[in-house]
Amino acid sequence: MEEIRLIEVKESIMSDNDATAEKLRAKLRDKKTFLINVMASPGAGKTSTILKTIEALKDEIRINVIEADIDSVVDSEKISAAGVLAVQLRTGGFCHLDAGMVQQGLDALDTDTLDLVIIENVGNLVCPAEFDTGAIKNIMILSVPEGDDKPLKYPLMFSVCDVLIINKMDYIGLSDFDIKALRERALKLKSDIKIFEISCKTGMGIDEWADWLRQQVKTFTR
Amino acid sequence: MEEIRLIEVKESIMSDNDATAEKLRAKLRDKKTFLINVMASPGAGKTSTILKTIEALKDEIRINVIEADIDSVVDSEKISAAGVLAVQLRTGGFCHLDAGMVQQGLDALDTDTLDLVIIENVGNLVCPAEFDTGAIKNIMILSVPEGDDKPLKYPLMFSVCDVLIINKMDYIGLSDFDIKALRERALKLKSDIKIFEISCKTGMGIDEWADWLRQQVKTFTR
Repeated sequence: MEEIRLIEVKESIMSDNDATAEKLRAKLRDKKTFLINVMASPGAGKTSTILKTIEALKDEIRINVIEADIDSVVDSEKISAAGVLAVQLRTGGFCHLDAGMVQQGLDALDTDTLDLVIIENVGNLVCPAEFDTGAIKNIMILSVPEGDDKPLKYPLMFSVCDVLIINKMDYIGLSDFDIKALRERALKLKSDIKIFEISCKTGMGIDEWADWLRQQVKTFTR
Repeated sequence: MEEIRLIEVKESIMSDNDATAEKLRAKLRDKKTFLINVMASPGAGKTSTILKTIEALKDEIRINVIEADIDSVVDSEKISAAGVLAVQLRTGGFCHLDAGMVQQGLDALDTDTLDLVIIENVGNLVCPAEFDTGAIKNIMILSVPEGDDKPLKYPLMFSVCDVLIINKMDYIGLSDFDIKALRERALKLKSDIKIFEISCKTGMGIDEWADWLRQQVKTFTR
């Protein structure tokens, strides 16, 4: 069990979040640390997906996790139990992370020794999409029970993401979820979005996703 | 098919949302119009639950719906197809409704002829909990696939709600969702929260919920 570091983050004094994010990304390039920002609705499976990703990659890639949660350390405890250091940002009611908060999280980590930092953003499809965290890639998880109409309702989230992970594929067939329609709607918002279909329960698709991420991290840290 | 009225809402100029909400509630008492505010994650089944509620009550109770959505009229179209007038508030990226926005929605309705107005808030467990909309009762929908840990992560949402509807009960047994733990966690945050277990797919529990709402509306509009 790894330790959990708890940080009470303050709202950024920096008014220009985009500039802070760009500066953070430049620093990450220097240090060769790949940073991904995982966003989703509450309950879509962010923590489960991160745990499966850790399981697949931790022998080859040095990973830490930055957890954002309004008022609990439930997720950090799970990450920590998987043997990976988790920094828990307590956002005290904030609905998203910004680059300044992520910087505070990174400051608590020894990035010189890391290949990959995974941010688990606040469970919310609205506000996190509006704030560049400084991540190299934005990942969105949509779970099958949420429905195939989400790109119509939360278009910004889909358009800022590089990857769409469709989780809980084991639920497909239990509803009228139309995966073809979902793919079309997502691709209309972001024509080069990479789509993975997974199930954290059965393990389906985890390898494909982990292979893609491994390749990205290796190229970045080379 | 009923018409859809589309309103582009502006952020309130009123800085004191609580005062605006109280004023709105006083007006509703005068007019004997019951107002409920339905909140949930994206995909928990807000629109489906509202449609089932309309189906159960529309012959006895005069209902209109205020729909909030960032960028679509998908939900309004469904409500309208059920023969009920829907006002669509386009929030243009806002993550919640406040009392001033709801007032703009009510202004577009003929509340003198209505018993019940249902607000479908933005799909989000964070921000909507922070803003009193002026509703008489706050209703939260949690769907089984989201998991039983949500009260630990979004405590404010549970503590501001009068009713917790657990939807997609047909998914129970497909996961390790612990309904007893969920009930305990919710009751710890709001000791008098009323809990209904429903499935919009099978119809389970809809009658109990509709009976409770009917009783509330009848008492209020007497």
